[in-house]
Amino acid sequence: MYSFLEKLGSLGSSRSETISSVSEDNNNGSMATIIVPDVVPSPVEDCQRLHKAFEGLGTDEKDLIKVLGHRNASQRKEIRETYLQLYNQSLIDALQSELSGDFRKAIVLWTMDPPERDAKLANEALKMCKKGVKYLKIIIEIACATSPDHLMAVRQAYCSLFHCSFEEDIASHVSSLPLRKLLVGLVSSYRYEREVVDLAIANSEASTLNEAIKTKKLDQDHVVWILSVRNFYQLKATFECYEKNYGNAIDKDIKSSGKGDLQNLLGAAISCIELTEKHFAVVIKESVAGLGTDEDSLTRGIVTRAEIDMVRIKEQYRLLYKGSLDADVIDDTSGDYRDFLMTLLGKGI
Amino acid sequence: MYSFLEKLGSLGSSRSETISSVSEDNNNGSMATIIVPDVVPSPVEDCQRLHKAFEGLGTDEKDLIKVLGHRNASQRKEIRETYLQLYNQSLIDALQSELSGDFRKAIVLWTMDPPERDAKLANEALKMCKKGVKYLKIIIEIACATSPDHLMAVRQAYCSLFHCSFEEDIASHVSSLPLRKLLVGLVSSYRYEREVVDLAIANSEASTLNEAIKTKKLDQDHVVWILSVRNFYQLKATFECYEKNYGNAIDKDIKSSGKGDLQNLLGAAISCIELTEKHFAVVIKESVAGLGTDEDSLTRGIVTRAEIDMVRIKEQYRLLYKGSLDADVIDDTSGDYRDFLMTLLGKGI
Repeated sequence: MYSFLEKLGSLGSSRSETISSVSEDNNNGSMATIIVPDVVPSPVEDCQRLHKAFEGLGTDEKDLIKVLGHRNASQRKEIRETYLQLYNQSLIDALQSELSGDFRKAIVLWTMDPPERDAKLANEALKMCKKGVKYLKIIIEIACATSPDHLMAVRQAYCSLFHCSFEEDIASHVSSLPLRKLLVGLVSSYRYEREVVDLAIANSEASTLNEAIKTKKLDQDHVVWILSVRNFYQLKATFECYEKNYGNAIDKDIKSSGKGDLQNLLGAAISCIELTEKHFAVVIKESVAGLGTDEDSLTRGIVTRAEIDMVRIKEQYRLLYKGSLDADVIDDTSGDYRDFLMTLLGKGI
Repeated sequence: MYSFLEKLGSLGSSRSETISSVSEDNNNGSMATIIVPDVVPSPVEDCQRLHKAFEGLGTDEKDLIKVLGHRNASQRKEIRETYLQLYNQSLIDALQSELSGDFRKAIVLWTMDPPERDAKLANEALKMCKKGVKYLKIIIEIACATSPDHLMAVRQAYCSLFHCSFEEDIASHVSSLPLRKLLVGLVSSYRYEREVVDLAIANSEASTLNEAIKTKKLDQDHVVWILSVRNFYQLKATFECYEKNYGNAIDKDIKSSGKGDLQNLLGAAISCIELTEKHFAVVIKESVAGLGTDEDSLTRGIVTRAEIDMVRIKEQYRLLYKGSLDADVIDDTSGDYRDFLMTLLGKGI
């Protein structure tokens, strides 16, 4: 495990930034893998090229990738707005109607406004959550691996898109009360964002968490409160204190305490908070491991992190699996879908 | 009690609107009592007049009132920004240093950005809350009598001003776990804002609330969840169902169940949600009733509602107390403080 200070140092830029800071960061020493050209065509030029790619009998997928795969969030926003003005059609609708399969899903998610994209991912996850707790981990990611302002924007987008609040929809789909309480707590958080750590609180809350794990009372109010209210720096310090004081990493102790869904989701939350890039390295590895590919998870991992911390995710992937994330993605994908993902990974067309 | 539909009809405009809609509404059939002139001087002209009022030996308080008391939230924002540019000093700081007493408190709160003002009121309330639960009612008002977007903006402002999250500060000041849980739940809400009511849910949740009241388990998760997640229209329907199905108004049953702080705060939350203008009519009446005046409550009631729903608060005041809010304020105040409050009430200088 890294030392606390090393981990703190790496935390700042590993969370989702607001759109404006993403765009400022791009190609400027950031942890993004997408490549934005030094001279970016105007939104009108980009839209004309996209519109031309849709014309005729077939669609020119390569041109779609060459434009959209090399624009950051704020540039894509301008493109969406300009496209609607020029052609009186939503660019997202055009992509939906002209494309198909995994490539369509990936480029549509990439082109959407990030808070709307996450609201859509969360809504689909809730509809699927009866089929397995893995879907609820997507909500954990949105709550624990993004910035407080982004999470607020996701809640606003959720209300606009689905005509109820995010929390109400969690409650109507998740029947288990402990899971519901954890999820509602996490998505309702608006954490302080700067580095403020109180070591006395870290020790005391490590002890509270240890008590809850030992007595198998993981659903108690204190646990949810600590994980959903404390700032990410404070929580990293608490997890560090936990390991120092009780001998094991907290996620290991949670896993040992039982194999239920609650343990599973708490583990995901801690993993997102403790080392976001490691969490996503695992998400991507699991999506390509074994026979077959979990394209939805692979797409989500790459699309949501490509302009945030993909450089670090690749490093973690190398450390954990002694292999290359790029190579594994190439192995498991093909066609336009592969070209697009590799473009987001900084190795495409 | 009004019928459910009548109440629904009156709800829409009684909550805090976002700043832009406040400014659109002013002098335009809104429920605000402040009077903005048809032709508003430019922010530069307003600032010059304010700056002149500060000059010389004494301050010209009347001029401060004549400018700031007749500008809506977005105009005051422009004035603050322009003042800082012109004189390299914050207008709030100038008011703080040149004025004193209740007039200063009132005009400073009025001049602040509304989310910052509420963050400041909440912070002061938390510091005072050991002295009585009445201070925590201020937090209930901010959570339950304002719009979801305003509440989000208050949480953002709280982080900026006080270097921790609103929820963390609630927990560090409120030692009672049931109160803390209720307050954190309410301030973390981001409710759906449009009129969506499910009568089956209203009946079922009225029953859950009745069960909690009967068994004196008001601190259970379900109660907090219902009050902090459901949209305001849905909650009003739930309260109506409660009265229909169980014979008494829900706040009456809560009061009968005990006289603790939790009952007190739950009553305040229900009162803010059920009929916001009635809640504030009571706040203002209690601040002027009997010997002496509670200037802080009086100021808060008028400053926070003058451009939202003060017309309706005055109507409620007349219905409840058979007297005039304006006359009672005049009776209990004097000097510049009175002139300023009366200006916000639409009857000033």
